Amino acid sequence: MPPLTKEVVKFGAFVVTNQVFHLTPLSYALVNIKPLLPGHVLVSPKRVVPRFNDLSSAEVTDLFLTVQRVSRMVERVFKASALNIAIQDGADAGQSVPHVHTHIIPRNHDDLAGEGGTDAIYGMMEGEEGDLGRQLREADEKRVDGGRKRRGRFPPVDADESREPRNEEEMQQEAEWLAEEMAKEKQTEN
Amino acid sequence: MPPLTKEVVKFGAFVVTNQVFHLTPLSYALVNIKPLLPGHVLVSPKRVVPRFNDLSSAEVTDLFLTVQRVSRMVERVFKASALNIAIQDGADAGQSVPHVHTHIIPRNHDDLAGEGGTDAIYGMMEGEEGDLGRQLREADEKRVDGGRKRRGRFPPVDADESREPRNEEEMQQEAEWLAEEMAKEKQTEN
Repeated sequence: MPPLTKEVVKFGAFVVTNQVFHLTPLSYALVNIKPLLPGHVLVSPKRVVPRFNDLSSAEVTDLFLTVQRVSRMVERVFKASALNIAIQDGADAGQSVPHVHTHIIPRNHDDLAGEGGTDAIYGMMEGEEGDLGRQLREADEKRVDGGRKRRGRFPPVDADESREPRNEEEMQQEAEWLAEEMAKEKQTEN
Repeated sequence: MPPLTKEVVKFGAFVVTNQVFHLTPLSYALVNIKPLLPGHVLVSPKRVVPRFNDLSSAEVTDLFLTVQRVSRMVERVFKASALNIAIQDGADAGQSVPHVHTHIIPRNHDDLAGEGGTDAIYGMMEGEEGDLGRQLREADEKRVDGGRKRRGRFPPVDADESREPRNEEEMQQEAEWLAEEMAKEKQTEN
């Protein structure tokens, strides 16, 4: 299946067209290169601006109606009971790519019991695991390298293999799957 | 100055009318009983519902346009360079009061350098410090006690006295101040 759109979708300086699973007039949703938990996705305005306050009222409205629809879908598909919804608005709040993005992270009871409890998600968001900018740069370098084996620049924080950065094919497959799930969501929404 | 509104404003089961500094048709903003950092405020829908997905499109729109206006104000007034904007959507994501609320926390470079860095805010949000439900219940008990000195049920996490739960008068004073600052914001907005 080809990507959802022929327009080039940018997340900061990065082209993420193949990771996009939902598009609206002013926003888009993309799968994550290194999800902190299954179903961890991002929703951004199409316009590349760094701060929430840079958005027009129309963009704010479109962004959060999209966050609501996408969060309903990932909660259903990933069988979650709760969600973390968060914007790191500016570098001093932990933002690593200067383009407004809302994290949506499906949660379950005791899903991080082995890693320090419910709150562990935030340390993960802020650590190297959550540093989207570095991961995307690394993915770009890997692409330029023609697939040369990635040096282990990021030591794994635990034994969970699902935390390894994913390749483009994996991300595109997930994007296609979630695009189908979004279509179901639209049919059932109020 | 009397409270902003004669209507009784509820945050979950708690009456917070005197803490409210901004009201819109469907949302309100309130000061925090125990701010994690100066200027940490909350924005909620007026309707008491637990989950983000319970909100109508009109409520989502009103809520986040309010979050944008309030976040612009606190960033200016508290001289911040960034913001954390976060919803703990459901108990398994750390929500302590079953009423949708968006945390807005002004941030500055190295503001938590002594407490573990930028990411420390999240542990604080999730810990006892951030357990709004317990703090509000404690404040209610204190009120019933006729001001009897509060037992030290919550050990301080550090020496910062600004973290002590505030009394109603302090909160009302801050609410009045921020209401005046919101009025300025409205005059200058696009």
